[in-house]
Amino acid sequence: MVHGVGLGPGSQDLLSVRADRLVRGARHVAYFRKAGKPGQARRIVEGMLRADVVELPMEYPVTTEIPVADPRYNGCLSTFYADCTRHLATLARAGEDVVVLCEGDPFFYGSFMHLYTRLWDQVPVEVVPGITGMSGAWTATGIPMTWGDDVLTVLTATLPEENLARRIRDTDALVVMKIGRNLDKLRRAVTAAGRDHEAWLVEYAAMAGQRVTRLSEADAVAPYFSILLIHGQGRRP
Amino acid sequence: MVHGVGLGPGSQDLLSVRADRLVRGARHVAYFRKAGKPGQARRIVEGMLRADVVELPMEYPVTTEIPVADPRYNGCLSTFYADCTRHLATLARAGEDVVVLCEGDPFFYGSFMHLYTRLWDQVPVEVVPGITGMSGAWTATGIPMTWGDDVLTVLTATLPEENLARRIRDTDALVVMKIGRNLDKLRRAVTAAGRDHEAWLVEYAAMAGQRVTRLSEADAVAPYFSILLIHGQGRRP
Repeated sequence: MVHGVGLGPGSQDLLSVRADRLVRGARHVAYFRKAGKPGQARRIVEGMLRADVVELPMEYPVTTEIPVADPRYNGCLSTFYADCTRHLATLARAGEDVVVLCEGDPFFYGSFMHLYTRLWDQVPVEVVPGITGMSGAWTATGIPMTWGDDVLTVLTATLPEENLARRIRDTDALVVMKIGRNLDKLRRAVTAAGRDHEAWLVEYAAMAGQRVTRLSEADAVAPYFSILLIHGQGRRP
Repeated sequence: MVHGVGLGPGSQDLLSVRADRLVRGARHVAYFRKAGKPGQARRIVEGMLRADVVELPMEYPVTTEIPVADPRYNGCLSTFYADCTRHLATLARAGEDVVVLCEGDPFFYGSFMHLYTRLWDQVPVEVVPGITGMSGAWTATGIPMTWGDDVLTVLTATLPEENLARRIRDTDALVVMKIGRNLDKLRRAVTAAGRDHEAWLVEYAAMAGQRVTRLSEADAVAPYFSILLIHGQGRRP
């Protein structure tokens, strides 16, 4: 069986009891990482794995030279996911349990979904939900996120600027993920929506290096693990 | 200190390791419930509490006679939350730790937020995030929720019908909470948005009695713990 296990936002004691048990007991542990990097999912479980664990790092192919819109980009990733799937399916068919480590929640913008949709009609796959990175982020701000009838919109900063601005204007509470190189564009969209004073930037939520700042006071560069938040102000007694 | 502890969607092994430790070790455990009911948060931790635990059920005042728009409704709840706050603050000032049990994630449409905003300048309060009910629900469907640039909108079914329809039309992925007596209205809004065939209803996610159905095949009545979902179909290699 293949287990897609949500690890939560980054702190070891924010794994669920079920995830903790699966990770500590696993003989085969797979995870994504960039070539030459330890990988965030692997880092979260440091010190938790069995002594005789067999690790299966799945290294993303280097696609920085290929534009995202180029068909070769998708082709390259598709081949990669198919290779990973084959490897996991072979293990599962041999009667082995494999735990795939997933940051946050596996079904919420997770890379595991690319394996899941290729695996689910081949071998048994089970998913363990996790605390999302955004829950880690709004908890870090110390301010409740959604009240009463509040509408929450979750966006990725990869969207076009006008689209971002329109949606940021048209919601009560807001989460923006996948910021990285899109921070400048996102700032302009927040300003166009007239919501600068409400926006917070959370870096490395629930990890070492956690940092919570108002967007207006944030640095010009945001790390990959950044989430922008606007808290809802809905009705309350 | 007061701990607002997220319990996750309903299964005991979906508490975080941190929450599990706090709940099992707590001498004082507080939770909301309706008068005469055990309370969902309390039910989740059944069998986990210390033998010498002191339980503090906080029973919502009966407000069914008062319309939500009536100022007496807010007044009644406000008095209730102030009373609870006073009790918790007194315990905390006497040097006791109190764990407040919270379904799902405390800062995500949680009743604990009403205590939190009254407590946070009086005594130390710490919040432990949890797996949201919606994560439990989309995991239960076995279908990934958000891909690539998908926009996710979270709504409460308490919103006016036209507002619901407009927002259901204008999103990729959708979560609707607080369904209960609003199911008929919500159905009409989903139909008006032309999205009947995409909608799923999840009842009691991650609990005994979990049930996943297409909205078109769902019963006419939904229990309080129901979540409507439309999965995103965003780009993927």
